[in-house]
Formats: sequence, C-alpha cells, structure tokens
Amino acid sequence: MNAKGYHVAVVGATGAVGEQMLQTLEKRNFPISKLTLLSSARSAGTKLTFKGEEYIVQEATPESFEGVQIALFSAGGSVSLKFAPEAVKRGAIVIDNTSAYRMDENTPLVVPEVNEDDLKKHNGIIANPNCSTIQMVVALEPLREKYGLNKVIVSTYQAVSGAGVQAINELKEQAKALLEGEEINPQILPVGSDEKHYQIAFNAIPQIDKFQDNGYTFEEMKMINETKKIMHLPELEVAATCVRLPVATGHSESVYVEIGADDVSAEEMKNLLNDFEGVTLQDDPSQQIYPMPADCVGKNDVFVGRIRKDLDRPNGFHMWVVSDNLLKGAAWNSVQIAESLIKLNLV
Amino acid sequence: MNAKGYHVAVVGATGAVGEQMLQTLEKRNFPISKLTLLSSARSAGTKLTFKGEEYIVQEATPESFEGVQIALFSAGGSVSLKFAPEAVKRGAIVIDNTSAYRMDENTPLVVPEVNEDDLKKHNGIIANPNCSTIQMVVALEPLREKYGLNKVIVSTYQAVSGAGVQAINELKEQAKALLEGEEINPQILPVGSDEKHYQIAFNAIPQIDKFQDNGYTFEEMKMINETKKIMHLPELEVAATCVRLPVATGHSESVYVEIGADDVSAEEMKNLLNDFEGVTLQDDPSQQIYPMPADCVGKNDVFVGRIRKDLDRPNGFHMWVVSDNLLKGAAWNSVQIAESLIKLNLV
Repeated sequence: MNAKGYHVAVVGATGAVGEQMLQTLEKRNFPISKLTLLSSARSAGTKLTFKGEEYIVQEATPESFEGVQIALFSAGGSVSLKFAPEAVKRGAIVIDNTSAYRMDENTPLVVPEVNEDDLKKHNGIIANPNCSTIQMVVALEPLREKYGLNKVIVSTYQAVSGAGVQAINELKEQAKALLEGEEINPQILPVGSDEKHYQIAFNAIPQIDKFQDNGYTFEEMKMINETKKIMHLPELEVAATCVRLPVATGHSESVYVEIGADDVSAEEMKNLLNDFEGVTLQDDPSQQIYPMPADCVGKNDVFVGRIRKDLDRPNGFHMWVVSDNLLKGAAWNSVQIAESLIKLNLV
Repeated sequence: MNAKGYHVAVVGATGAVGEQMLQTLEKRNFPISKLTLLSSARSAGTKLTFKGEEYIVQEATPESFEGVQIALFSAGGSVSLKFAPEAVKRGAIVIDNTSAYRMDENTPLVVPEVNEDDLKKHNGIIANPNCSTIQMVVALEPLREKYGLNKVIVSTYQAVSGAGVQAINELKEQAKALLEGEEINPQILPVGSDEKHYQIAFNAIPQIDKFQDNGYTFEEMKMINETKKIMHLPELEVAATCVRLPVATGHSESVYVEIGADDVSAEEMKNLLNDFEGVTLQDDPSQQIYPMPADCVGKNDVFVGRIRKDLDRPNGFHMWVVSDNLLKGAAWNSVQIAESLIKLNLV
C-alpha cells in the first residue's frame, strides 16, 4: 500500500450487498487511497457517498481495474466470471462474493474465523462463501476444533435481502397489499430467474435458488459442499433444507450436530461458543434470551442460542444460529478477508 | 343418537379453533340434533351462526353438559381440567384439544389416520394432539407402516394462529406499524403468559410455549412425547426445534427421518405418501411445486413435498410438511375423531 492505503474497487456498488460493503469499509476505517465504484451499464451514473465524498458509479470494463489492488465483487456470477480474471491480470486481488469460483479448486473459500490460512494459497481470486454457509461454519468451528464433527443437519430460515433490493421491496409491497385486502402479483421470489413466483409476505417458501436434478436446490448444495471445503472435512455428513421467510434481513438456522465426544454438557458447549471470536452467545431460556433476526441487523457477529443436548444421542446438540446475511454473510466477511490479507502481508 | 343426530357441545366456541370447529361441523354435515355453544364468562353472550341459525354462547358450568353426547373442548387446559370430568360424569364423550390429558396414560391421544383403534380404549376423554405433532405423524405413518422408523429430527415454521385470535391481530398490527415506520409494542407473542414479548412481524422467534428446565420448550417436548405415544414407538428417537413465524395460518415442518430400510428411492417414497389417506403430495421440483402455508389454508389434508434422499445415509430422507394448523392441527382432527367414534359405534 502507499502511505494512505490501497486502491479498492467495489463491483456491484449499487446492490444490497454493495451498499453494505461501502458502509463496512467506512465503519472499519479500511485503509483506502483510492476508491473505484463499478456496476453494470444499467446502474452506471448512480451517485454514492463514502466518508462524506460523492462518487459516481462507473460501468465496469477490463480497464476499470488498472491500478486496483483489492477488488470486492458482488454483482452476480456472470460479472465475476467476466471481470475477475481481468482484474487479476492487472494485479488486483479479487474477493468475490458470488458463487462463480467457490468450488474451484484453485480458489480458496474463506471465512477468516475458520480457515484464514487458506488465503496463503490464493491465485488472485478469493471466494466469499454463501451467506447461509458462513454463519453456520462460524458456529461449528469451535466444535470441530475441540471435539471433531460427524454430522450436521440444518434447516434455514432465510431473509429476502439475500435475493437483492428488489426482493426486499417485493416483501414490503406484498405485505402492505395483503393487509389492505388487495391482490398481489409476485414477480421476484423465490428466484428472479426461475419460472414461477410466489407470495412471500405471510408465507414460507421452501425454495432458494433453482433446483438441481437430485431434488436439492443449488442453495442447499452450496451449504453442503462449501461447508466441507471451508472446514477441510470432505467426509463430513451435511444435509440442508433452505427456506425463504418474510423477513427483510437476518438469516436463522436450526442446526443439529453430532460431535466427536459423548460427555460434553450443554453448559460446556455454551462456554466454548461464548469464547469463540466472531460468536456472540445469546442463550438464557430462563430469561427468554435467544437470537432473533430482528435483533441481529447491522451487527457483524454470528449469534448463537437455544443450545441443548439431543435427548437420544449423547454426542448430539441442537442450536439456533442467527446473523445479518448482508454483513457476516456477505459484506463484512469480504472486508474481513481483505483485512486478513493485509495482516498476513498478502496484498 | 336419535333420528337427527347427537347433542354436541363446543367449549371455547368463540376462539380461533372454536370458529373452525363450527365451520368444520357444518361443512362435514355432522349429525347434530342439538348444539350447545359454551365459553368463559367473558365471552358468554356472543352470538354465533351455525347452518344459518343464531346461537347465543353460554358460560360453561357443570350443568351445561346435561344431555351432551359429544363435547369438543378448545378453551385452554384449565377449562378442560375443570369441566371435562363434569361432562364425562354426565355421559358425554369429551374430545379435548388442549394439552391437559394428552400424556395421561388412561387417555387415548388420537390422529385417526395413525391410531384410530386407540379410541376403543377411551374412558370418556380423548385427547387431540398438538397441532405441530398431528401433521408430522400423518406424514410419518406410511413410512412407519412400511419400513419402520429409527430417527426423526424436525424444525418447525409455525403460524401465529396457534397462539389464538389475539396473536393474529398482533401480527397484522405490527406489520402495518413497521411498514409505516411506527413504533410497536409487543404484548402477546411468543407466549402470552410468559414475561417478555417480542416482535413477530418480519422476524422469527425460536420459542413456542414456555421453557422447561432442560432447555427445550413445552412445544418441543410435546412433539417428542406425543409422537412416541401416538405411533406406539416409545423408543423412537425424536428431536424438535419449534419456531414461530410471521405467518397467520399454516404450519410448515422440515423433517429429517431415518427409516428401517436402505434401498428405498425418493420416487417410491413419493408414491407411498401419495397413496396415504390424509396426505396430498405436492412434489415436483421441475415445476416448482411444493407445499406452502399460504396454499394450505382452509384445507383438511397434510401436504408433503421436497421429498429427497439424504446424501450420506442410505436410510435418510428429508421432506417438507405443511398443514392448516387450525384444521388438521385442531378442529378437523377433533371432528374427525368424532366421526371415527360414530363409525366404530363408540358413541
């Protein structure tokens, strides 16, 4: 870096995650010497404010990345596939928040609390995992470290903001219409690019992303495959059911896990999670204290509660894991990766 | 019964379930010679319409049950404990929709598709199971029958109407206020009688009913204990995490089940469920067909979809189970029990 910091580019600056990227860079006082905001042609020209200064968003081209040192991508997989190699060619390190490179074996898939060292093997691109995966592996990592993991079954309760700004608007407009007894006309959820669209307000939709031939959605397979990759546990049993809720921001997960030890108490498990960087324990049933999506918005941590032993399996535990999907699930994890790169002298 | 039918009493006629009881009795053209509508002193005097005739709801007293043959109770556990024995003393068969008698070993706990024969052992009172239990055991019964069951892990997505009419109003009023940027003041959910109350609109609350000392809620323990009792499987491994959603009516459940066979395909499982009385299969990922709470309202069946094999355990399956919690979860199951009693000549 020069005296003042790094030349940072944000690709997809006008999106739901892009907005959080800028706010997070500002909040963390990330060392920036120059900031380049990029988007598709459609959103180019938008004016955004960063640290009190106005920036005009520009259409991304290969040349936009000249001189860029850190490029944060969050503009969809096709944009990353097109421009990430161009950025790398020009000397930038790309932190990509799309699914484009996540399962590529030459690309580290990183959650700093879990596998920061994988950054050392990067080849220009670092993938930011899927939002629902990130918060789960943060909650699982202390268990893996201390006891080992055998099996994970997760059912998710996911917010609409994972599907973008338009999905948030759709939720609000639908809720308003239904409360006033008006007709609704779903056009985005569950998946903008899929054929059918369903009511999300006052409903729950068991589809996030499109379906694969095996009956699982891509979102479910992301959780399964990414968890194994991030945790370096290719043999770990992982199963996921992903469900979209009428919640704007904040993903929740009901996680069942079997660990490699039979004699661990719920109290020990709570202490272990409480001591883990990146986790905030919220777990006191006697005071009705547990995490909820409405409380996690705007916070970087992963919130864990409802920790209890399974009543049948001595190595089984249940827990409830909540986090802001736009922050730890996206923007914060990306900026955290950038901070780790600096700390490890990799940029 | 006399020529025209039975003398039926509905206790808790003015509640969310009571309203559905009356509608269900009417829709089913249940043989009624006399209808007595009862409630607490507070709701007495309310006028209700049944088959075009007006009825005045009366305060329940022991004497209200003179001559009653079938009494449908849905006015809370304390009302059932007080009046169900009085009704039985006077010759009525009580079908109780509260948790008061469910785990009493002299009281059958019945879901007609699963254990109709248990009605033959009744001692005057028959318990209607918890809403979230009912829809799950209907979906599990064909699997138990054909393959046997080893393990069940369920995460629920429950509607607020399970907490009564006031909870439905709270959801709507909160949603309206939040959409207009106004303050909210939660007073009912998650549990009216518990100390703290939280936002339900655009949120998810991992608490239904109060907490037990073991960290599980009563709702979760109901699902665990009632499932074992109804299915006559005291050794079955069952675990539950119960979560309240901003949905008015319609409970959803993400169910993982391990059966007693390794060689069953998802297709066979779909056919098995499709053929089971009381289940409607909605399962075609290629057409985005799966059950959702918004679609199940007003229907008696249990809707099952998202059926797929676990990717690690050959005997493991995942499925998504949705039903109207006020109908199959309460009113319809109670009326169905009454119809079974008639069919089996038990009343």
